[in-house]
Amino acid sequence: MSLSIRNQLSGTVLTVTPGEVMATVRVRLTGGQEITAAVTREAVGELGIAAGSEVRTLVKSTEVALATGAVEGLSIRNRLPGTVRAVTAGGAMAGVKVAVAGGELTAAITKDAVEDLGLAPGAEVTALIKATEISLAAV
Amino acid sequence: MSLSIRNQLSGTVLTVTPGEVMATVRVRLTGGQEITAAVTREAVGELGIAAGSEVRTLVKSTEVALATGAVEGLSIRNRLPGTVRAVTAGGAMAGVKVAVAGGELTAAITKDAVEDLGLAPGAEVTALIKATEISLAAV
Amino acid sequence: MSLSIRNQLSGTVLTVTPGEVMATVRVRLTGGQEITAAVTREAVGELGIAAGSEVRTLVKSTEVALATGAVEGLSIRNRLPGTVRAVTAGGAMAGVKVAVAGGELTAAITKDAVEDLGLAPGAEVTALIKATEISLAAV
Repeated sequence: MSLSIRNQLSGTVLTVTPGEVMATVRVRLTGGQEITAAVTREAVGELGIAAGSEVRTLVKSTEVALATGAVEGLSIRNRLPGTVRAVTAGGAMAGVKVAVAGGELTAAITKDAVEDLGLAPGAEVTALIKATEISLAAV
Repeated sequence: MSLSIRNQLSGTVLTVTPGEVMATVRVRLTGGQEITAAVTREAVGELGIAAGSEVRTLVKSTEVALATGAVEGLSIRNRLPGTVRAVTAGGAMAGVKVAVAGGELTAAITKDAVEDLGLAPGAEVTALIKATEISLAAV
Repeated sequence: MSLSIRNQLSGTVLTVTPGEVMATVRVRLTGGQEITAAVTREAVGELGIAAGSEVRTLVKSTEVALATGAVEGLSIRNRLPGTVRAVTAGGAMAGVKVAVAGGELTAAITKDAVEDLGLAPGAEVTALIKATEISLAAV
Protein backbone atom coordinates (compact mmCIF):
# COMPACT_ATOMS: atom_id res chain seq x y z
CA MET A 1 0.00 0.00 0.00
CA SER A 2 1.47 3.34 -1.08
CA LEU A 3 -0.36 6.45 0.07
CA SER A 4 -0.50 9.95 -1.35
CA ILE A 5 -0.64 11.11 2.29
CA ARG A 6 2.72 12.79 2.78
CA ASN A 7 2.89 12.84 6.50
CA GLN A 8 3.39 9.53 8.25
CA LEU A 9 4.92 9.41 11.70
CA SER A 10 5.11 6.24 13.79
CA GLY A 11 4.31 5.89 17.43
CA THR A 12 2.72 3.95 20.26
CA VAL A 13 -0.81 4.47 21.55
CA LEU A 14 -0.94 5.87 25.09
CA THR A 15 -4.68 6.11 25.66
CA VAL A 16 -8.00 5.72 23.88
CA THR A 17 -10.98 7.82 25.00
CA PRO A 18 -14.15 6.57 23.36
CA GLY A 19 -17.19 8.75 22.83
CA GLU A 20 -20.42 7.44 21.34
CA VAL A 21 -19.42 8.08 17.73
CA MET A 22 -15.87 9.41 17.81
CA ALA A 23 -12.85 8.44 19.88
CA THR A 24 -9.69 10.34 20.69
CA VAL A 25 -6.46 8.39 20.53
CA ARG A 26 -3.32 9.73 22.15
CA VAL A 27 -0.06 8.57 20.57
CA ARG A 28 3.58 9.04 21.55
CA LEU A 29 5.64 9.40 18.38
CA THR A 30 9.10 7.89 18.06
CA GLY A 31 10.40 11.47 18.01
CA GLY A 32 8.98 11.90 21.54
CA GLN A 33 6.08 14.23 20.66
CA GLU A 34 2.51 13.44 21.65
CA ILE A 35 -0.29 13.47 19.10
CA THR A 36 -4.08 13.27 19.53
CA ALA A 37 -6.17 11.80 16.73
CA ALA A 38 -9.97 11.99 16.59
CA VAL A 39 -11.23 9.04 14.57
CA THR A 40 -14.49 7.13 14.47
CA ARG A 41 -15.07 4.75 17.34
CA GLU A 42 -15.79 2.08 14.74
CA ALA A 43 -12.28 2.44 13.31
CA VAL A 44 -10.74 2.01 16.76
CA GLY A 45 -12.70 -1.19 17.19
CA GLU A 46 -11.93 -2.64 13.77
CA LEU A 47 -8.22 -1.88 13.99
CA GLY A 48 -8.04 -3.15 17.56
CA ILE A 49 -6.38 0.07 18.69
CA ALA A 50 -5.61 0.11 22.42
CA ALA A 51 -2.94 1.38 24.77
CA GLY A 52 0.35 -0.09 23.58
CA SER A 53 -0.66 -0.52 19.92
CA GLU A 54 1.94 0.44 17.35
CA VAL A 55 0.43 2.83 14.82
CA ARG A 56 1.33 5.20 12.06
CA THR A 57 -0.29 8.64 12.22
CA LEU A 58 -1.31 9.93 8.79
CA VAL A 59 -1.96 13.55 7.89
CA LYS A 60 -2.66 15.05 4.48
CA SER A 61 -0.38 17.99 3.65
CA THR A 62 -3.36 20.29 3.18
CA GLU A 63 -4.23 19.74 6.87
CA VAL A 64 -0.94 21.03 8.28
CA ALA A 65 -0.74 24.68 9.33
CA LEU A 66 2.45 26.43 10.44
CA ALA A 67 3.12 28.94 13.20
CA THR A 68 6.14 31.08 13.86
CA GLY A 69 6.59 32.22 17.43
CA ALA A 70 4.87 30.98 20.56
CA VAL A 71 1.70 28.93 20.28
CA GLU A 72 -0.74 29.02 23.16
CA GLY A 73 -4.44 29.23 23.86
CA LEU A 74 -5.24 27.16 20.79
CA SER A 75 -7.82 24.36 20.44
CA ILE A 76 -5.52 22.66 17.93
CA ARG A 77 -4.17 19.71 19.90
CA ASN A 78 -1.11 18.82 17.87
CA ARG A 79 1.96 21.03 17.75
CA LEU A 80 5.23 19.71 16.41
CA PRO A 81 8.20 22.06 16.56
CA GLY A 82 10.54 21.90 13.58
CA THR A 83 12.74 23.66 11.07
CA VAL A 84 11.83 24.58 7.50
CA ARG A 85 13.91 22.60 5.01
CA ALA A 86 12.46 23.71 1.67
CA VAL A 87 9.69 25.84 0.19
CA THR A 88 8.19 25.21 -3.25
CA ALA A 89 5.74 27.83 -4.47
CA GLY A 90 3.12 27.46 -7.18
CA GLY A 91 0.71 30.15 -8.37
CA ALA A 92 -1.71 29.89 -5.45
CA MET A 93 -0.33 27.26 -3.10
CA ALA A 94 3.08 26.38 -1.66
CA GLY A 95 4.59 23.21 -0.25
CA VAL A 96 6.74 23.59 2.85
CA LYS A 97 8.97 20.76 4.12
CA VAL A 98 9.58 20.84 7.86
CA ALA A 99 12.06 18.64 9.72
CA VAL A 100 10.61 17.53 13.05
CA ALA A 101 11.98 15.16 15.69
CA GLY A 102 11.74 11.68 14.20
CA GLY A 103 10.85 12.67 10.66
CA GLU A 104 9.65 15.24 8.19
CA LEU A 105 6.32 16.92 7.49
CA THR A 106 4.96 18.58 4.37
CA ALA A 107 2.51 21.46 4.74
CA ALA A 108 0.48 22.66 1.76
CA ILE A 109 -0.41 26.24 2.62
CA THR A 110 -1.24 29.32 0.58
CA LYS A 111 1.58 31.17 -1.12
CA ASP A 112 0.30 34.27 0.69
CA ALA A 113 0.94 32.60 4.05
CA VAL A 114 4.51 31.74 3.05
CA GLU A 115 5.13 35.36 2.15
CA ASP A 116 3.43 36.84 5.22
CA LEU A 117 5.36 34.57 7.58
CA GLY A 118 8.62 34.97 5.62
CA LEU A 119 9.07 31.20 5.54
CA ALA A 120 12.42 30.07 4.13
CA PRO A 121 14.86 27.24 4.84
CA GLY A 122 16.12 27.46 8.39
CA ALA A 123 13.03 29.12 9.84
CA GLU A 124 11.84 27.71 13.17
CA VAL A 125 8.15 26.82 13.02
CA THR A 126 5.52 24.79 14.82
CA ALA A 127 3.41 22.48 12.69
CA LEU A 128 -0.23 22.56 13.83
CA ILE A 129 -2.66 19.74 13.10
CA LYS A 130 -6.28 19.54 14.27
CA ALA A 131 -7.08 16.17 15.91
CA THR A 132 -9.91 15.51 13.45
CA GLU A 133 -7.39 15.61 10.58
CA ILE A 134 -5.27 12.72 11.82
CA SER A 135 -5.86 9.18 10.57
CA LEU A 136 -4.24 6.07 11.96
CA ALA A 137 -2.75 2.99 10.33
CA ALA A 138 -2.24 -0.22 12.31
CA VAL A 139 1.28 -1.58 11.79
CA MET B 1 -26.84 26.87 -5.60
CA SER B 2 -23.64 25.73 -7.33
CA LEU B 3 -20.84 24.47 -5.14
CA SER B 4 -17.07 24.63 -5.53
CA ILE B 5 -17.01 21.18 -3.91
CA ARG B 6 -15.88 18.90 -6.74
CA ASN B 7 -16.93 15.57 -5.35
CA GLN B 8 -20.64 14.90 -5.15
CA LEU B 9 -21.93 11.35 -5.18
CA SER B 10 -25.57 10.45 -4.58
CA GLY B 11 -26.89 7.69 -2.40
CA THR B 12 -29.38 6.47 0.16
CA VAL B 13 -28.89 6.56 3.93
CA LEU B 14 -28.57 3.11 5.50
CA THR B 15 -28.12 4.00 9.17
CA VAL B 16 -27.65 6.98 11.46
CA THR B 17 -25.69 6.57 14.71
CA PRO B 18 -26.09 9.65 16.89
CA GLY B 19 -23.62 10.70 19.56
CA GLU B 20 -24.08 13.79 21.69
CA VAL B 21 -22.16 16.14 19.39
CA MET B 22 -21.40 14.15 16.26
CA ALA B 23 -23.31 11.50 14.33
CA THR B 24 -22.12 8.96 11.80
CA VAL B 25 -24.29 8.44 8.75
CA ARG B 26 -23.79 5.38 6.57
CA VAL B 27 -24.78 5.85 2.93
CA ARG B 28 -25.01 3.42 0.01
CA LEU B 29 -23.97 5.26 -3.15
CA THR B 30 -25.66 4.68 -6.48
CA GLY B 31 -22.38 3.08 -7.61
CA GLY B 32 -22.86 0.44 -4.88
CA GLN B 33 -20.07 1.61 -2.54
CA GLU B 34 -20.74 2.39 1.13
CA ILE B 35 -19.67 5.67 2.66
CA THR B 36 -19.56 6.83 6.31
CA ALA B 37 -19.94 10.55 7.04
CA ALA B 38 -19.28 12.07 10.46
CA VAL B 39 -21.37 15.23 10.71
CA THR B 40 -22.81 17.16 13.62
CA ARG B 41 -25.84 15.64 15.28
CA GLU B 42 -27.51 19.01 14.86
CA ALA B 43 -27.17 18.79 11.08
CA VAL B 44 -28.74 15.34 11.04
CA GLY B 45 -31.71 16.72 12.94
CA GLU B 46 -32.17 19.85 10.85
CA LEU B 47 -31.90 18.01 7.56
CA GLY B 48 -34.17 15.23 8.79
CA ILE B 49 -31.64 12.59 7.76
CA ALA B 50 -32.79 9.04 8.57
CA ALA B 51 -32.54 5.57 7.09
CA GLY B 52 -33.93 5.76 3.57
CA SER B 53 -33.18 9.46 3.01
CA GLU B 54 -31.79 10.37 -0.39
CA VAL B 55 -28.61 12.42 0.04
CA ARG B 56 -25.66 13.73 -1.84
CA THR B 57 -22.24 13.16 -0.22
CA LEU B 58 -19.92 16.14 -0.65
CA VAL B 59 -16.13 16.07 -0.36
CA LYS B 60 -13.66 18.84 -1.08
CA SER B 61 -10.87 17.78 -3.45
CA THR B 62 -8.23 18.65 -0.86
CA GLU B 63 -9.73 15.99 1.44
CA VAL B 64 -9.26 13.07 -0.94
CA ALA B 65 -6.11 10.96 -0.60
CA LEU B 66 -5.09 8.22 -3.00
CA ALA B 67 -3.55 4.80 -2.40
CA THR B 68 -2.00 2.34 -4.81
CA GLY B 69 -1.94 -1.36 -3.86
CA ALA B 70 -4.05 -3.12 -1.24
CA VAL B 71 -5.46 -0.90 1.49
CA GLU B 72 -5.64 -2.37 4.95
CA GLY B 73 -5.29 -1.48 8.60
CA LEU B 74 -6.41 2.12 8.10
CA SER B 75 -8.74 4.18 10.30
CA ILE B 76 -9.93 5.97 7.15
CA ARG B 77 -13.46 4.63 6.68
CA ASN B 78 -14.08 5.46 3.05
CA ARG B 79 -12.26 3.69 0.23
CA LEU B 80 -13.48 3.96 -3.33
CA PRO B 81 -11.58 1.95 -5.91
CA GLY B 82 -11.10 3.64 -9.26
CA THR B 83 -8.92 4.40 -12.23
CA VAL B 84 -6.93 7.57 -12.83
CA ARG B 85 -8.31 9.47 -15.82
CA ALA B 86 -6.15 12.60 -15.82
CA VAL B 87 -3.40 14.33 -13.85
CA THR B 88 -2.80 18.09 -13.89
CA ALA B 89 0.31 19.30 -12.09
CA GLY B 90 1.02 22.80 -10.83
CA GLY B 91 4.03 24.11 -8.93
CA ALA B 92 3.11 22.65 -5.54
CA MET B 93 -0.17 20.78 -6.00
CA ALA B 94 -1.69 18.41 -8.53
CA GLY B 95 -5.26 17.57 -9.46
CA VAL B 96 -6.02 13.92 -10.14
CA LYS B 97 -9.31 12.79 -11.72
CA VAL B 98 -10.39 9.30 -10.75
CA ALA B 99 -13.26 7.37 -12.33
CA VAL B 100 -15.15 5.41 -9.67
CA ALA B 101 -18.31 3.31 -9.90
CA GLY B 102 -21.16 5.76 -10.36
CA GLY B 103 -19.09 8.89 -10.97
CA GLU B 104 -15.81 10.70 -10.84
CA LEU B 105 -13.69 12.12 -8.03
CA THR B 106 -11.07 14.86 -8.02
CA ALA B 107 -8.19 14.63 -5.57
CA ALA B 108 -5.98 17.67 -4.91
CA ILE B 109 -2.73 16.19 -3.62
CA THR B 110 0.87 17.34 -3.63
CA LYS B 111 2.86 17.15 -6.83
CA ASP B 112 5.41 15.12 -4.82
CA ALA B 113 2.79 12.47 -4.08
CA VAL B 114 1.89 12.15 -7.77
CA GLU B 115 5.54 11.56 -8.59
CA ASP B 116 6.20 9.14 -5.73
CA LEU B 117 3.16 7.02 -6.58
CA GLY B 118 3.79 7.26 -10.33
CA LEU B 119 0.20 8.35 -10.92
CA ALA B 120 -0.77 8.57 -14.58
CA PRO B 121 -3.92 7.86 -16.61
CA GLY B 122 -4.85 4.21 -16.33
CA ALA B 123 -3.39 3.68 -12.85
CA GLU B 124 -5.58 1.70 -10.45
CA VAL B 125 -6.02 3.58 -7.18
CA THR B 126 -8.21 3.69 -4.11
CA ALA B 127 -9.59 7.07 -3.12
CA LEU B 128 -9.46 7.48 0.68
CA ILE B 129 -11.70 9.93 2.54
CA LYS B 130 -11.84 10.41 6.31
CA ALA B 131 -15.42 10.28 7.66
CA THR B 132 -15.06 13.74 9.22
CA GLU B 133 -14.42 15.23 5.76
CA ILE B 134 -17.73 14.20 4.26
CA SER B 135 -20.69 16.57 4.24
CA LEU B 136 -24.22 15.69 3.25
CA ALA B 137 -26.83 17.51 1.19
CA ALA B 138 -30.50 16.58 1.47
CA VAL B 139 -32.02 16.16 -1.99
CA MET C 1 -30.53 21.84 -1.33
CA SER C 2 -29.96 21.75 2.43
CA LEU C 3 -26.42 21.13 3.59
CA SER C 4 -25.05 19.45 6.70
CA ILE C 5 -22.28 22.08 6.57
CA ARG C 6 -22.99 24.23 9.62
CA ASN C 7 -20.99 27.28 8.75
CA GLN C 8 -22.27 29.39 5.92
CA LEU C 9 -21.36 33.06 5.75
CA SER C 10 -22.20 35.27 2.77
CA GLY C 11 -19.95 37.76 1.08
CA THR C 12 -18.60 39.33 -2.09
CA VAL C 13 -15.49 38.19 -3.94
CA LEU C 14 -12.66 40.72 -3.82
CA THR C 15 -9.97 38.93 -5.85
CA VAL C 16 -9.22 35.60 -7.49
CA THR C 17 -5.60 34.42 -7.75
CA PRO C 18 -5.38 31.42 -10.05
CA GLY C 19 -2.60 28.84 -9.85
CA GLU C 20 -2.37 25.92 -12.22
CA VAL C 21 -4.39 23.53 -10.04
CA MET C 22 -5.70 25.59 -7.15
CA ALA C 23 -6.93 29.18 -6.90
CA THR C 24 -7.22 31.46 -3.89
CA VAL C 25 -10.39 33.50 -3.64
CA ARG C 26 -10.59 36.46 -1.29
CA VAL C 27 -14.07 37.27 -0.01
CA ARG C 28 -15.41 40.15 2.09
CA LEU C 29 -18.12 38.82 4.34
CA THR C 30 -21.25 40.80 5.12
CA GLY C 31 -19.94 41.04 8.70
CA GLY C 32 -16.92 42.94 7.34
CA GLN C 33 -14.32 40.18 7.84
CA GLU C 34 -12.12 38.99 4.99
CA ILE C 35 -11.83 35.30 4.17
CA THR C 36 -9.48 33.44 1.83
CA ALA C 37 -10.64 30.17 0.26
CA ALA C 38 -8.31 27.81 -1.63
CA VAL C 39 -10.44 25.88 -4.10
CA THR C 40 -9.68 24.14 -7.38
CA ARG C 41 -9.16 26.38 -10.37
CA GLU C 42 -11.69 24.24 -12.17
CA ALA C 43 -14.38 25.14 -9.62
CA VAL C 44 -13.67 28.85 -10.05
CA GLY C 45 -14.13 28.48 -13.79
CA GLU C 46 -17.31 26.40 -13.61
CA LEU C 47 -18.96 28.64 -11.03
CA GLY C 48 -17.87 31.79 -12.88
CA ILE C 49 -16.36 33.22 -9.71
CA ALA C 50 -14.74 36.63 -10.25
CA ALA C 51 -14.30 39.92 -8.41
CA GLY C 52 -17.79 41.12 -7.47
CA SER C 53 -19.44 37.69 -7.39
CA GLU C 54 -21.82 37.06 -4.52
CA VAL C 55 -20.89 33.81 -2.76
CA ARG C 56 -21.52 31.84 0.36
CA THR C 57 -18.44 30.49 2.17
CA LEU C 58 -18.95 26.98 3.54
CA VAL C 59 -16.92 25.36 6.32
CA LYS C 60 -17.50 22.04 8.05
CA SER C 61 -17.59 22.31 11.88
CA THR C 62 -14.71 19.84 12.21
CA GLU C 63 -12.50 22.32 10.29
CA VAL C 64 -12.91 25.22 12.70
CA ALA C 65 -10.28 25.69 15.43
CA LEU C 66 -10.52 28.20 18.28
CA ALA C 67 -7.91 30.43 19.88
CA THR C 68 -8.06 32.43 23.05
CA GLY C 69 -5.66 35.34 23.28
CA ALA C 70 -3.66 36.99 20.50
CA VAL C 71 -3.19 35.17 17.22
CA GLU C 72 -0.13 36.00 15.17
CA GLY C 73 2.57 34.34 13.11
CA LEU C 74 0.14 31.74 11.83
CA SER C 75 -0.21 30.33 8.31
CA ILE C 76 -3.95 29.94 8.90
CA ARG C 77 -5.43 32.73 6.79
CA ASN C 78 -8.85 33.04 8.30
CA ARG C 79 -9.41 34.46 11.77
CA LEU C 80 -12.85 35.53 12.87
CA PRO C 81 -13.14 37.07 16.31
CA GLY C 82 -16.23 36.14 18.26
CA THR C 83 -17.84 35.20 21.54
CA VAL C 84 -18.73 31.71 22.72
CA ARG C 85 -22.51 31.28 22.97
CA ALA C 86 -22.82 27.63 23.96
CA VAL C 87 -20.75 24.51 24.55
CA THR C 88 -22.09 20.95 24.18
CA ALA C 89 -19.79 18.15 25.27
CA GLY C 90 -19.92 14.47 24.31
CA GLY C 91 -17.56 11.70 25.34
CA ALA C 92 -14.73 12.64 22.95
CA MET C 93 -15.84 15.71 21.04
CA ALA C 94 -17.52 19.01 21.85
CA GLY C 95 -19.53 21.48 19.80
CA VAL C 96 -18.89 25.15 20.41
CA LYS C 97 -21.18 27.89 19.04
CA VAL C 98 -19.45 31.19 18.43
CA ALA C 99 -21.19 34.46 17.56
CA VAL C 100 -19.16 36.39 14.97
CA ALA C 101 -19.95 39.61 13.13
CA GLY C 102 -22.68 38.79 10.65
CA GLY C 103 -23.51 35.33 11.91
CA GLU C 104 -22.62 32.29 13.95
CA LEU C 105 -20.06 29.51 13.63
CA THR C 106 -20.00 26.01 15.04
CA ALA C 107 -16.65 24.41 15.88
CA ALA C 108 -16.38 20.67 16.56
CA ILE C 109 -13.25 20.31 18.66
CA THR C 110 -12.05 17.77 21.19
CA LYS C 111 -13.54 17.83 24.66
CA ASP C 112 -9.95 18.06 25.91
CA ALA C 113 -9.47 21.34 24.06
CA VAL C 114 -12.62 22.80 25.60
CA GLU C 115 -11.33 21.94 29.06
CA ASP C 116 -7.77 23.14 28.45
CA LEU C 117 -8.95 26.48 27.07
CA GLY C 118 -11.69 26.83 29.69
CA LEU C 119 -14.25 27.57 27.00
CA ALA C 120 -17.64 28.63 28.31
CA PRO C 121 -20.38 31.02 27.24
CA GLY C 122 -19.05 34.55 27.14
CA ALA C 123 -15.45 33.62 26.35
CA GLU C 124 -13.76 35.75 23.70
CA VAL C 125 -12.22 33.57 21.01
CA THR C 126 -10.89 33.72 17.47
CA ALA C 127 -12.19 31.11 15.05
CA LEU C 128 -9.37 29.85 12.82
CA ILE C 129 -10.00 28.23 9.45
CA LYS C 130 -7.37 27.01 6.98
CA ALA C 131 -7.97 28.34 3.44
CA THR C 132 -8.06 24.79 2.02
CA GLU C 133 -11.07 24.01 4.24
CA ILE C 134 -13.33 26.68 2.80
CA SER C 135 -15.72 25.86 -0.02
CA LEU C 136 -17.75 28.35 -1.98
CA ALA C 137 -21.34 28.34 -3.20
CA ALA C 138 -22.42 30.66 -5.98
CA VAL C 139 -25.67 32.42 -5.06
